[in-house]
Amino acid sequence: MRLSRYFLPVLKETPAEAQIASHRLMLRAGMIKQQAAGIYSWLPLGFKVLRRLENIVHEEQVRAGHIPMLMPTLQPADLWRESGRYDDYGEEMLRIKDRGGRDLLYGPTNEEMITDIFRSHVGSYKDLPLTLYHIQWKFRDEIRPRFGVMRGREFFMKDGYNFDLDYENAMHAYNRHMVSYLRTYERMGLQAIPMRADSGPIGGDDTHEFLVLAETGESEVFYDSEITGLKLGDREIDYDNWDEVAGICTEWTTPYARTDETHDEALFDAIPEERRKTSRGIEVGQIFYFGTKYSEPMGAVVTTDTGERVPVHMGSHGIGVSRLVGAIIEANHDENGIIWPEGVTPFHAGIVNLRQGDAETDAACERLYAALEAEGLEPLYDDREERAGAKFATMDLIGLPWRITVGPRGLKNGVVELTSRRTGESEELAPELAVARLRDIYAGHI
Amino acid sequence: MRLSRYFLPVLKETPAEAQIASHRLMLRAGMIKQQAAGIYSWLPLGFKVLRRLENIVHEEQVRAGHIPMLMPTLQPADLWRESGRYDDYGEEMLRIKDRGGRDLLYGPTNEEMITDIFRSHVGSYKDLPLTLYHIQWKFRDEIRPRFGVMRGREFFMKDGYNFDLDYENAMHAYNRHMVSYLRTYERMGLQAIPMRADSGPIGGDDTHEFLVLAETGESEVFYDSEITGLKLGDREIDYDNWDEVAGICTEWTTPYARTDETHDEALFDAIPEERRKTSRGIEVGQIFYFGTKYSEPMGAVVTTDTGERVPVHMGSHGIGVSRLVGAIIEANHDENGIIWPEGVTPFHAGIVNLRQGDAETDAACERLYAALEAEGLEPLYDDREERAGAKFATMDLIGLPWRITVGPRGLKNGVVELTSRRTGESEELAPELAVARLRDIYAGHI
Repeated sequence: MRLSRYFLPVLKETPAEAQIASHRLMLRAGMIKQQAAGIYSWLPLGFKVLRRLENIVHEEQVRAGHIPMLMPTLQPADLWRESGRYDDYGEEMLRIKDRGGRDLLYGPTNEEMITDIFRSHVGSYKDLPLTLYHIQWKFRDEIRPRFGVMRGREFFMKDGYNFDLDYENAMHAYNRHMVSYLRTYERMGLQAIPMRADSGPIGGDDTHEFLVLAETGESEVFYDSEITGLKLGDREIDYDNWDEVAGICTEWTTPYARTDETHDEALFDAIPEERRKTSRGIEVGQIFYFGTKYSEPMGAVVTTDTGERVPVHMGSHGIGVSRLVGAIIEANHDENGIIWPEGVTPFHAGIVNLRQGDAETDAACERLYAALEAEGLEPLYDDREERAGAKFATMDLIGLPWRITVGPRGLKNGVVELTSRRTGESEELAPELAVARLRDIYAGHI
Repeated sequence: MRLSRYFLPVLKETPAEAQIASHRLMLRAGMIKQQAAGIYSWLPLGFKVLRRLENIVHEEQVRAGHIPMLMPTLQPADLWRESGRYDDYGEEMLRIKDRGGRDLLYGPTNEEMITDIFRSHVGSYKDLPLTLYHIQWKFRDEIRPRFGVMRGREFFMKDGYNFDLDYENAMHAYNRHMVSYLRTYERMGLQAIPMRADSGPIGGDDTHEFLVLAETGESEVFYDSEITGLKLGDREIDYDNWDEVAGICTEWTTPYARTDETHDEALFDAIPEERRKTSRGIEVGQIFYFGTKYSEPMGAVVTTDTGERVPVHMGSHGIGVSRLVGAIIEANHDENGIIWPEGVTPFHAGIVNLRQGDAETDAACERLYAALEAEGLEPLYDDREERAGAKFATMDLIGLPWRITVGPRGLKNGVVELTSRRTGESEELAPELAVARLRDIYAGHI
């Protein structure tokens, strides 16, 4: 993309309403615009990141054997009356009357609807196990929306639901979700720690939430530093192998890690002192096992191999996709702007032309641009007639991990400058070597 | 995907409520489930098609130089009060009050919001031309939703908006949209004819709608048969070249083609009689130029090179993505089910195992499956223990363009059977040749 043709409305001033770094930086970098309290437009740069996260979530869910579909944003109130949650849910549920006077609501979550789909179409244990998921806009009418997309009202979320014959199968589904979530966060450049949690309004026995460590997190967290060393890396995972999947979960849940809600002082004190850590965390996902809580009242039953009719065991599993954009920024920024991890960056590299209009420099930039695209990379080329300082400031603000600076002086020596946004370190090298370097860096990310 | 692990709830009975083929077939093929009047869940098979259409629309919009972003589903009423449409829009607008008593609405279209984004961030002619678009769920509270996703209330739509300095630039944007739409439909296997149209509630001077010929279409259409022979094919298009783009529009708009709303009997009668055609058509898109209708009242102005402040010239351009799923089926089905065009099929080929459990047949199917995946194709493997007849009926119903039938008898002679869903013709050939054939058929589609 050429910046002269893009829509990147960066702001010079820091917006007064933004209290935390991600909100401030998303506004300044032209990623979002507020349209009403807690309701945002995703401007082109923001949408690109959101879409990358959505694709990563899809890929990891499909890899785990979960099946994508899509439920609507609006739901009939009657479904929620069946489960008893229509009255329980309170004011956070946005209730709507259509022109025919029928009660609708903007879905805050989808347990009722997915259970309805299941009971309408599935009747035999032979159709199990089954995990369906979707990524869809949801609405919670927060009384005090704030922190930008971190606590918006209209938000984009992946929620998945498993249907299993018994507790053991449902626990495998639970574990499969935990592992697929760990992979998802890791690909996004995040370390998200699974922590035993309270179940809240969804209900349930087993539940973990995933927290990203960040000063601005809403929860206080206590953990054993051993856990921050864990990585899945390139590990091949057979999601059908119960033991293998359970083994990974054990690895990740053995070191102590709890939020203030479930913190156990005695257990914490048993950890060697130098490994005891306290911090704050941002919740970016949660998995639940809740058994027959919905299948029983809503009649989601299957016939077993002995002809018995039993309610299915279910769980629900969510990743806050729009919130993750904010969480990634909270965990990856400095005083000059965002620092995107390679897995989620909106563009793979910025090209800064130091002398726009100079025929040779322009041509070198165009060649670089074409060479990067030929490698399957997406460059953002700042081809505006602007001072170098302004171009650098924009690149730093929007946080592309790599910048290639092209100027007449370097070209005379056959080199361009490759700069890491994270370390600030620069290196002069031939343009084709810069391209090769970026190709290697992004191998596995595109 | 293995069918034993998929969620494909096909129906044996034809649902009574479905009046047209696409609605009937989408329900029977397990593509959708109605959740409330005109509000649908997209079950896995339906979602796969919807996503393919979404991706084609994105690709063709980006190719034309238009910039993707995403606006929220809910909008503040105040924006619509500014344009005067809040009161005008009538009962089709779904009006909502949030817990704070503020007026929101579920966006039926986005002229106001995009104009607000523009005026907040753009002030100079140097930032023009600019075309922004998004693909998002919208809501129109139809009094009588029907025909499934063809006339739903919650629907998925691409809407794009151009901002230009003057009429000539805006006309180029208009033409660019016409050409990018023609390419989009062609990739979906559809012939959509641009027809001069009335402008309706959006307002505007120049407007064309795109109609797919189908017996169940809501509009009567009159056209010169010359137009159905036009094809863009692999033509390289330079979207920056005004004359080239305008030339294509002239090609497609010169032969007579009108709906009953704008039909001109005298012009029609001037066409040689054998070329005069009457049919019905389904509207799948519309483009509008409306000048300063929104920019003037809402203050979307730029400073020109002479320092003058002028309202920008705008247009809006829509493709009904969810409706297209239905339109494609209306134009592509027979008495046994759907017949997907190669460009939009949810899976590229079906594999039917005639003797599930037979070691050699199973192994041959697995090898085929792996070989197709290695070519970047997505097979759907019917690995259920079912009669051949039931497997064929399912494949015919869900309409994959190609089926590979694998049985012990053929394997003894080293062959499998490749069958075209459209022609019904079969051919016996070695498995590796079947894979090579499909690779060639799908070249350019994946």
